Formats: sequence, structure tokens, C-alpha cells
Amino acid sequence: MRFELTFARLAPDLKVIAPWRRTDWPFVGRADMLAYASEKKIPVQVTAEKPYSMDRNLVHVSYEGGILEDPWREPYNDMFRMTVSPEDAPDKPEYVEIEYAGGNPVAINGERRANEIGGRHGIGRVDLVENRYVGIKSRGVYETPGVTILFHGHRAVEQLTLDREVMHLRDSLIPRYAEMVYYGYWFAPEREALQALVDDTQKNVNGVARLKLFKGGVLIAGRKSPNSLYDPKIASFEEAGGYNQADADGLIRLAGLRLRALARASAKKD
Amino acid sequence: MRFELTFARLAPDLKVIAPWRRTDWPFVGRADMLAYASEKKIPVQVTAEKPYSMDRNLVHVSYEGGILEDPWREPYNDMFRMTVSPEDAPDKPEYVEIEYAGGNPVAINGERRANEIGGRHGIGRVDLVENRYVGIKSRGVYETPGVTILFHGHRAVEQLTLDREVMHLRDSLIPRYAEMVYYGYWFAPEREALQALVDDTQKNVNGVARLKLFKGGVLIAGRKSPNSLYDPKIASFEEAGGYNQADADGLIRLAGLRLRALARASAKKD
Amino acid sequence: MRFELTFARLAPDLKVIAPWRRTDWPFVGRADMLAYASEKKIPVQVTAEKPYSMDRNLVHVSYEGGILEDPWREPYNDMFRMTVSPEDAPDKPEYVEIEYAGGNPVAINGERRANEIGGRHGIGRVDLVENRYVGIKSRGVYETPGVTILFHGHRAVEQLTLDREVMHLRDSLIPRYAEMVYYGYWFAPEREALQALVDDTQKNVNGVARLKLFKGGVLIAGRKSPNSLYDPKIASFEEAGGYNQADADGLIRLAGLRLRALARASAKKD
Amino acid sequence: MRFELTFARLAPDLKVIAPWRRTDWPFVGRADMLAYASEKKIPVQVTAEKPYSMDRNLVHVSYEGGILEDPWREPYNDMFRMTVSPEDAPDKPEYVEIEYAGGNPVAINGERRANEIGGRHGIGRVDLVENRYVGIKSRGVYETPGVTILFHGHRAVEQLTLDREVMHLRDSLIPRYAEMVYYGYWFAPEREALQALVDDTQKNVNGVARLKLFKGGVLIAGRKSPNSLYDPKIASFEEAGGYNQADADGLIRLAGLRLRALARASAKKD
Repeated sequence: MRFELTFARLAPDLKVIAPWRRTDWPFVGRADMLAYASEKKIPVQVTAEKPYSMDRNLVHVSYEGGILEDPWREPYNDMFRMTVSPEDAPDKPEYVEIEYAGGNPVAINGERRANEIGGRHGIGRVDLVENRYVGIKSRGVYETPGVTILFHGHRAVEQLTLDREVMHLRDSLIPRYAEMVYYGYWFAPEREALQALVDDTQKNVNGVARLKLFKGGVLIAGRKSPNSLYDPKIASFEEAGGYNQADADGLIRLAGLRLRALARASAKKD
Repeated sequence: MRFELTFARLAPDLKVIAPWRRTDWPFVGRADMLAYASEKKIPVQVTAEKPYSMDRNLVHVSYEGGILEDPWREPYNDMFRMTVSPEDAPDKPEYVEIEYAGGNPVAINGERRANEIGGRHGIGRVDLVENRYVGIKSRGVYETPGVTILFHGHRAVEQLTLDREVMHLRDSLIPRYAEMVYYGYWFAPEREALQALVDDTQKNVNGVARLKLFKGGVLIAGRKSPNSLYDPKIASFEEAGGYNQADADGLIRLAGLRLRALARASAKKD
Repeated sequence: MRFELTFARLAPDLKVIAPWRRTDWPFVGRADMLAYASEKKIPVQVTAEKPYSMDRNLVHVSYEGGILEDPWREPYNDMFRMTVSPEDAPDKPEYVEIEYAGGNPVAINGERRANEIGGRHGIGRVDLVENRYVGIKSRGVYETPGVTILFHGHRAVEQLTLDREVMHLRDSLIPRYAEMVYYGYWFAPEREALQALVDDTQKNVNGVARLKLFKGGVLIAGRKSPNSLYDPKIASFEEAGGYNQADADGLIRLAGLRLRALARASAKKD
Repeated sequence: MRFELTFARLAPDLKVIAPWRRTDWPFVGRADMLAYASEKKIPVQVTAEKPYSMDRNLVHVSYEGGILEDPWREPYNDMFRMTVSPEDAPDKPEYVEIEYAGGNPVAINGERRANEIGGRHGIGRVDLVENRYVGIKSRGVYETPGVTILFHGHRAVEQLTLDREVMHLRDSLIPRYAEMVYYGYWFAPEREALQALVDDTQKNVNGVARLKLFKGGVLIAGRKSPNSLYDPKIASFEEAGGYNQADADGLIRLAGLRLRALARASAKKD
């Protein structure tokens, strides 16, 4: 589906042949296909020993099907390819510093090995029942160590550099953005329009996040930015310089004005 | 602010006296007040040894101010009241089962001690730079062990029981709901209207989540529900019963129709 | 599609036979079918004289196809069934009063003849290129006189009775609600969840709207409500009782705080 | 407020002196100020004869206060400055053609006199109870003839040129955009981020709208575009070339899949 929606936009006249969806496709299910592959001596990864489907790309491995179809069953630990089990991760936390420029990670401890670093701490295993575009729920297990680390670091730097309203606006659109990507609408005009908004929000997301990696977990241990909007002097309880407590009087009275009007209208009605 | 917005709706004629915001308030900052308290022998929790502010309620402890004002500085481990450090948590994971009825947790391992269980595994520590309603950023550190566990369990059961569109609709409104609660608009009509939507989504969120707690982390290890919308027979790669691959042909062709129209209109223009 | 999605929820096991979508359906287009109907002496409304498709229900007539397929072409005036042309409407405006209870119209001038009243003033003609669920744009012309009047009256009463935040929240969800209804997802859980929100917003929408109907137009001429949140004493420029100008000082200073922080951070960077 | 929020971003160190909000401001209301102006022979527009406030700019005149504070009272016709009454507008409709390039109107009948054209047909009168940022409702009457015409023409061209999902995404954000502008947050980063999205949507909004102006009303009479995504051949009932009816089978079956799963899960539960 994701391939075909991509072709629809980039090569609209391309004819797609999808064997599995043809009515003359002879196989009923995967077991059927495995038997055929075995008969014809076609090498396949999925076997009776690894009874699930597996897809790997730069950022993750996904596992589906077979024994994973029971959502009450926990995956075997030896299924995972990119991460050790949290139990097998080092007994000492590792601290990493990730630098971001314009919202993009540019270095992790000065290098570019996020998957390796995350993987050795058992980071980024996700087990979920997801909702496919075709209308069914399916159970997927993922491991995505590098991106998980980068995500937390990104959020850490955004905390300092994104304006509140910009962050809330962007956050309210994340489910819609995620839908577009997940359903296959990357090369769709709605994704491009939303991307323009997202890109605009990222232009000042510069800085460094310090993260503590330990036994499958990622904790923010520090963040700093040349563009920081956080000003301890304004926020401080200790200094009077920044924010004027008396100003809050007016804000609070006006913030409550419509609630008082509502309370009085209700009282009058009753 | 949260108190006063509550009064605005529930007791609109109540007069609020907020000493800190009065222009005749004699103290400039917290250090000033501590000196006064010490002079008058008024016992206070904050001291030179615990140089930060602390608030506790049923679900969390929050820490702010003092040495925490530097967002690059990691909190001391001995600051925390409800959780052990992930490093000090048991070396063996604990599995818990949480039961939900109508979206509400009703038992965790048959008991009601979520904070204690989460606390001993170092779960629910959060360190963030947040955006206050008055317009400033401030750094807050939280520990909220029980609610963190309940949150993950809730999501696990929702994965089985919430319709896709219902989940995406609800998720797109979470930032708005969180704003309402955080800013103090609990007793506001917009929160009540949004609550009506949320409540409607929860009526079939019944079931059990099995969670693995380990060294600060919470992983979904299983979920089941009498209301499950997940049907392995439909989703299965192994059986042909449910979902008809040929149907996807029509869906995909029509899903791409507007993209092909767009591609062709662009080509014509160029 | 709308029928079949309804069956999917209410009668999931019903088998649907849709002749037009069968591969053995012998007709290529509408002209083909009309020829067959004529040959077999089957009476049909669409003729060479009325070369478009027409659907009528309680609230509207829709026209599509045939000569309407050219979006640059204005419909003939004699196509319309429920409304006179604005040019043929009376030369004197008519004022109507519509009463709403819980958001629902309960009487218009004490009666229930909205379509007739709107129709004689040429109200509710809409000409649009719409976006079908199947991915195509199509041109539709509608007349919906009664509902157009009821819509404007409803908004008029909401202006007095809906809290600002409730209105903005509801308004932001209208495109989503409209999608659900238009695509056929009335009996879908996401429509029900959103309806719970909408219903909650309507509980105090009581009052009377006075509308001026003239030559195709509807103008609000007045509105009143026993639940009105509008208080001329608070809003008045003439009295000092309600809203305290000095309060705005604090609000404005704090509303601008994050913008000043941003301006200063940008200046520092440059 | 709008001025001050602008200064907050563009000139954060500017000191604002707002006489009306000073505690030493001697006037209690407007009547008071008018008396002073009269005593000191200061010429002012508001008089006993024009007992309301009036603001004019390039696109509109707004009227507030005084006799308009009663939301049940219709404004006098002679209050309006830019528009004739619909009753006094010409008895013959006028057709105008508006050209748009990149979403911007570039000519109306080859000229640039939208206010004059709209004004003579009584177009763009709006009477509403609005929700101010400071928390109060206030009644405002507006006339905005030119922009009303341009708005309808813009929508007409968008119907042809905007992709469905882009339009729905943009539409869902209109209430938020309107809030930003109305509250005074034009020079705010959230408006800039949202603008980036809106600008992206407009890049292919090129074409001509033909509008019928009559007695206060604006009706779309035609639209065309070199970028049109509307393809009568695809949408046609008359030709088989474009859209394949059989494809809808698969779409509909899959669109209803989650509803059937829900229906069956509910049946099982009951």
C-alpha cells in the first residue's frame, strides 16, 4: 500500500502487479507458501523455528504474525535483532550527549552510532496492537533503539527552544502526521503542507541533550541551547527581577471572568 | 491560579486574598521568607540542605526551584520520596496484572498499591522544562510511580478495545485536554464537553494488562479483553477467512485516485 | 456507501448486492441505462430535458451530473424544486423568530414550515465542487432552504449561550464531524464519541433568534436567551461596574511574556 | 492588546503607556469622556446622534457600544458607511470575475475595487456577539464588502484546486488561526508556523471565480483553473473511463471492516 500510494503520486501511470492480491494467486496463507518454497528449494528466513514475519530497515526491525498473533503472549527474548534484553544490559548507566541543529540530530557523543548505543542498553522495544489502514487490528513488536534515543533528546532540546503555543499546536497535529506516514501518504500534499508547519517549528531547535541510558530506559539528565527560551531569572522563586506577581492578579481575574459569568447564568436559571 | 479558577466557577462571589500577589507583600523572594521563618521560629521543610520546593499529593511529588533551576543539572537521587533509583531497583523484573473496567483501573495484582509497586522499581521519574500558563518556562522534576504504571496498562487495554478512529480522534485532543487540566480549567465547560467525548470512548475499555516492571521501565507483556476488537482470524497471515486480499485492490486504487489526479495536474502545468 | 457502512454496524452479516458495481453489470453509463429504460418503457425522471440527476429528502434536493459537470456553467433557474430564484423572491424582507431548546429548533414563527418560508425567499442554494470519499471531485448543486435558516438562527443563539472555549473547541471539530456524516460514518463509534461532546455543548443553547430573510439572504436581526452569557454591564463602555481596565494590564504583560522572551532570544542569537 | 502583543515581539523593551488602564485615569466611562471633550471643545465623532463606537480600516468598518449593546436590537440602516442596504441594492444581479494567483486575488473584473462593487450590492454586513480575549462577550456589527466577495471567490477556486485532505486539514485549523489573529497574536511564532502550512496549501490556488452579487448575497456562478483537480471524465456518470465502480467494492468492504468487528464484539458481549 505504501509503495503504491508513492507510485500514485510520483509515477501515476505505472501499472502495479501485486501477486498476493490477484484472484489467481494460488497460496491461501503463509504456511502454504513456505511449503512451496521448501519444495522448490527457495531459501526463506521464516521457518518453523522463527514462526513470525520480520522486516528490517535503517531504524527498526518489526515482527508480526505467527506466535505473535496472541496479544497476551510476551515475545521470546531471542527474537530481537538490534537490542539486548534490559536484563542483559550493563549494570551501569551510560550518559550520552546528542547535539541537534534545526531539529535534526547531528552527533551522538560526537559519533553517529545511535542504534548500537541504544541496542546495548536494551532501548526501544515496543509491543503494540496497531490499527492498519485496511481496517484491521494487528499485533506488532518493534525494536528501534537509535530513534528512541534521538526522540527523547529531541524533546529535551525542544523543551528549551520551542515556544509553548508552537509546541501545543504541533503536538495536536502529531496523531494526524503519524496517520499520514503510517498509512503511506508520505508523498501526499497534506503531508507536505503539515511538514511546512513542522519545519517552521524546528528552525531554532538547536542544542544539546544529555541522556542517561539504563536497562531499557532513557531519562533526560540535562539540556542546553544557545536559543533557550528558558530564563531562570524570570522563572525564579529567588529573584524579583523577571515576572511580576501582581500582574498575575489581572490575568487570573480575567481568566476567570467567563467562568464567573457562566456560574452566575447557571445560578439565575436554577 | 488553579484554586482561583475553581472558585470562579464554583463560588464566583468568593473574594480571594493572595498575599504573594499583594503590592504590600514584604518579601522579595524565597530566601527572604526563609530568613523570616527562621527568625520567627516557623518550621519549614525547605532548608539550605533541601534547596528546592516540593509538593506532594496522592499521585505525585513535584520538585522545583533552587538548584533545579539549572536545566543542565541532573537532580540528586536522594531528592526523590516515592521511588528508588532505577539502579537500586531489584535485579529481577516484576510482572503485574492490572484490570480495567470502563477505562478505570480497578485492581493491580488484585490490590490497590500502584505507587508502592511502581516506586520500588524506580518507575515514573520525569524531568522536564514545562510551559506555565503565565507565560514562563520552568523546570520541574516529578515522580509519579503509580499513575505511570496505570497509564501504560490503560493504553494496552485500549489497543484491543478502542476503535481506530475513536483512538485517533481522542489522541488528537489530548494536548488540549492536558492544557485545560494543567492551566486550572478543570471546572470549566470546555473540559466538561471534552470529558463527555472521552467518557464515551471509555465505555468498552475493559480488560487486563500484563506489565513488566524493571529498573525504571514499564513494558507491555500482554493484554486481553472480553470486548477485544482484535481478531487474529481477520488479521492472520495464516488463514484466508477474514480479510480478502483482493478487496485491497479497490481500496488502494481509490486511495491513490486523488494523488494520481494531482500528479497529472502538476505534469500538465509543467 | 452510506447505506453499506450503516449495515456494517447495524447488520454486519447482511449481504449487499450492488448491481452497479458488479462486473457483469451491462450498462456503461447513464445514457445507456436511459436507453434501456425507454426501450422497456420503465418510467424515469431524468430525461433529455432534465439532463442531470436529482435526489430529494426532507431537508434538501441535490442535483448532479449531466450539464452540471461543467463547473463554469451556472445552473438553470428552472432546475430548482424547493426555492424560487432570489430575483423572484418578495421585494420586502420577512422577519422570522426561531425558538431553540437544548440546541434544537422547536418553532419558527410558532409553526414548523422552515422549508416553505425559506423557499419563498430563495434561501439555501449552494453550488459546490465537493470531494467524495472515493477520491474524486464532483460538482453538486443543492437547495436546502429550511436548514439554512435554522443554521443561522442556531448560531445566533449560540453566540449568547456558548462559552468561548466551548465554541472554539466545537468549531475546530466541525470539519471532522462533517467528514463523518458525509462519508457515511453516522453509525460509527467516532461519530458517537464526537456527538457526546457536541450534545454536551448544546444543553444551554436555549433562546430565540430573529432573522431577516430577503432575496436569498439570511441576516441575524436579534437574539435573546434566558441563559445568556452576554452581560452588557460587563462589556459596556458606559459603566465601570464589570470589567476592570487595570486587570488587563497584568493579562497583557503576561500574554506578551513569551513573545518578549522570544524576541530577546532572537536578538541574542543574531 | 493587539498593539501591545505586536510590540512584545518586535520591540520587547518598549514601554507602553495605556491611559485608560492607569489607576489615576479620571474617566469612568465614555459618557464621562464625551462630556470632557465637549467642555474642552475637543471634536469627537461619537455624539448623541451616533451613539456607538466606530472603527474603520481598509477592509471594514466595525460598530460597537451604545445602542448596539442590546443584542435583540437590529442596527439602524443609516449607521453603515461602506454598504447600501440589501433592499436599496440594484434590482438586477451583477456578475463579477475574480482572478486568483497562489491564493491571492489579483483582479476583480480586471480592476481592484472590491469594496465599491460589494458595497453597492449591500454585501458583507455581519452582526454578531463575539468573544473577546479578555473573557467577555460583546456585540459587534461589521461591514466588510470587498473581503466578503474575495472570500467566496477564493473558496470557489479552492474547490477545484485544493486536494481534499489538504482542505480538511486546513479547515480544521481555521478556528485556531482566527483566534491568533483576533486575539492579537499575528507576530507570534505559532501564527508563523501555521502560516507556513497555509502558504503551502495555496501554491496551486490559481484560477477564476465567477460570482453573482445580488441584494446582499454572493453566489458562486462558476469557477475554472489551469490547475484544476476536477476531472469531469473521472467523476462522470456518463463515461466509464475514469473511476471503476468495481473498485468501490473493495473500498467499501474494508471501510466497513472495523464497524463489523465492532458490531460483532458488541453482539458477543450482550
